[in-house]
Amino acid sequence: MHTDLVAALDIGGTKIAGALVDRGGRILVRAQRPTPARQDGDTVMRAVEEVIGELIASPLWSRADAVGIGSAGPVDASTGTVSPVNVPGWRDYPLVARVRAVTGGLPVELIGDGVAITAAEHWQGAARGHDNALCMVVSTGVGGGLVLDGRLHAGPTGNAGHIGHISVDLDGDPCPCGARGCVERIASGPHIARRALEAGWRPGPDGDTSAAAVAAAARAGDPVAVASFERAAQALAAGIAATATLVEIDIAVIGGGVGKAGDVLFTPLRKSLADYATLSFVQRLTVVPARMGTDAGLVGAAAAVLGRRADAAAAGV
Amino acid sequence: MHTDLVAALDIGGTKIAGALVDRGGRILVRAQRPTPARQDGDTVMRAVEEVIGELIASPLWSRADAVGIGSAGPVDASTGTVSPVNVPGWRDYPLVARVRAVTGGLPVELIGDGVAITAAEHWQGAARGHDNALCMVVSTGVGGGLVLDGRLHAGPTGNAGHIGHISVDLDGDPCPCGARGCVERIASGPHIARRALEAGWRPGPDGDTSAAAVAAAARAGDPVAVASFERAAQALAAGIAATATLVEIDIAVIGGGVGKAGDVLFTPLRKSLADYATLSFVQRLTVVPARMGTDAGLVGAAAAVLGRRADAAAAGV
Repeated sequence: MHTDLVAALDIGGTKIAGALVDRGGRILVRAQRPTPARQDGDTVMRAVEEVIGELIASPLWSRADAVGIGSAGPVDASTGTVSPVNVPGWRDYPLVARVRAVTGGLPVELIGDGVAITAAEHWQGAARGHDNALCMVVSTGVGGGLVLDGRLHAGPTGNAGHIGHISVDLDGDPCPCGARGCVERIASGPHIARRALEAGWRPGPDGDTSAAAVAAAARAGDPVAVASFERAAQALAAGIAATATLVEIDIAVIGGGVGKAGDVLFTPLRKSLADYATLSFVQRLTVVPARMGTDAGLVGAAAAVLGRRADAAAAGV
Repeated sequence: MHTDLVAALDIGGTKIAGALVDRGGRILVRAQRPTPARQDGDTVMRAVEEVIGELIASPLWSRADAVGIGSAGPVDASTGTVSPVNVPGWRDYPLVARVRAVTGGLPVELIGDGVAITAAEHWQGAARGHDNALCMVVSTGVGGGLVLDGRLHAGPTGNAGHIGHISVDLDGDPCPCGARGCVERIASGPHIARRALEAGWRPGPDGDTSAAAVAAAARAGDPVAVASFERAAQALAAGIAATATLVEIDIAVIGGGVGKAGDVLFTPLRKSLADYATLSFVQRLTVVPARMGTDAGLVGAAAAVLGRRADAAAAGV
C-alpha cells in the first residue's frame, strides 16, 4: 500500500485538532473538537477519538502510516503519558497507548507543544535553514523548543526547550511551578498586563486589560505600558541569552500573542539581548518573529514523525 | 602503519600540557610547559610547539593519527581560532592551523576546556553511562559542558555548556563579561570568599582568605561562611535547573576547587535544586562531585577526537 501521509494531533487546553499531512507539510484533511478540559480523563479521550475517527473516515486514511502528537505539557515521551497543566483529568495519562489502539497499532511519536511549534518553524518557518535555533511561544504561558545540530532536540521525555520555567531572577516572585523569577512569571501576557495595571496604567473605554491592549498603549507612547514591555523583554533576553550560552543557538524565533506585539516587544528585546548575550560566540544571535500560523502545532507534530523516520533511514534502521 | 593513539593538548592560563593517549584513555607519554600567558602570541605558541616537540620525539608518536585540543575559552572551532581570556596575546589566534603545521598535517579537533572536562567525565568519570549530563568546573571561574543524547554537545564553535555566564539574577551585580548576575559572579571561589569577607568573616592566623578557607570555616559552623556557600549553591542550583529545563539532563557533575568543598556545598546545593528544578521532567536530576583528576583536560581532548571518529564511522564516513 502506498503510504505517503502521516496523521498529526495538536492537543491543547482549548481545542484538539487533527490532520492528515503530506511529506510537503500540506494539510489534506482536518478535524477539530473543543477540549472538555474540566471533565474526566475518559471524556477528554473521547474527544480525541472523535477527531481521529473523522480522519479515519477519510479515503486518504489508508495512506497514513504513523501518528505525531504535540500535546500541552508536561508530557513524558519515555512512558507515552501526558499530564497537561490545563487538563486536570489527565495525569500520567497513557495517551500514546490509547492513540495506538484507536489507529490500529500505528507507530506514535509524542512531543510537547513547544517542541512541535519548533519543528514547524524549523521545517517551514522562521528557523528554516538554521541548524541551531530556539523557538518560543510567548502568550498566556511561555513555552519553547530547540533545534540543535540541525535536528529537533526533544529530550528523553519530549519537554526540552521549556524556557518559560528557567529562573532569571533567583530571588524573584514565586512562580506557580514552585520556583522563583521564571521567564514566564515576568514575560507572559498576563504578567505584562498585571505589571502595567499595578504601575497605574488604565485601560480604554472598552475595558480591555489584555497584553494586546497594553501593547497598543505602548505604541501610543504610554510610558507605563512601555516599561512593562521593556521588563518582559529583559526577562526574555536573559532567558534567550542563557540558552545561547548553554547550547549555541544562532536564532531565536518568537511566536504567540505577545510575539505579535511587534516593535513594542522586539526593539527592547534586541537592546536587552545585547546586554545579556555578551560572550563572543553568542553575539551573532538574532531574534525574529515566528512565521507559522495556527497550524504550527499540527505541522510540527507531522514534522517530528517525518524527521524521526529520516533519522532512522540515515542510520540504516 | 598501526595508528592506535591520539595526541591531546590541554591549554590553560597556567600550563600547557600534552599527551599521547590510547583508545582506553591511558596516558602513555606526557609533556608540559608553563604558559607564558602575559607574553606575545608567538611566544605562547613556541611553548605549545615545545610540548608537541616532546611528544613527536617519542617512539610512540608514529602511532598517533589525530590531535585533540581543549583550550581555555572562548574558542572558535568553526574557524580554528582561540581567544583565551587569560592569554591576551592570543586573540582569534589560528591555533588549529599552527598545530596542524607542526604535526605534519594531522587532523585537529578543537573544543573549549569545559567541553573537554565533560568529555572526560562522560568517558571515564561521574557522568559515565548518562546520555544527558552537565559537567561543571567551579573554581576561579565557572565553566562547563554538555552531553546530549549520549554525545558531547560542543556546539558549532566548541563553547556550549558555558554555564558560568548565564544570568540567574537579571538585575544583579555587573559581571566582567558585560552581563549581570551571572552564575560565575555569585558562585566562583573568589566571589564566595569576597561575600564572606564583606559579611564580616575573618580568616585564621594564617591569613588564608581563599574559598577553601571559607569552606573550612563553614564546616566549623561559622554562619557567615555557611551563608556564603548557601548563596553560591543557590546560584548553581538555578543555573543547573535552567540547563535541565532547557535540554533535559539527568545528572550534573561538579568539579574544580569549589566542587571539592564537599557537604558544605552539596547539602545546600541539593536543597536549592529542589526549589528551582520543579517541573516533573527535571525532578529526577542528581548532582554529584567530579571523579576525574588533573588529567581530565587531556583525557577529554583525546575523547573528543575519538568520539568524533566513532560518529564518523557510525555514519559510514
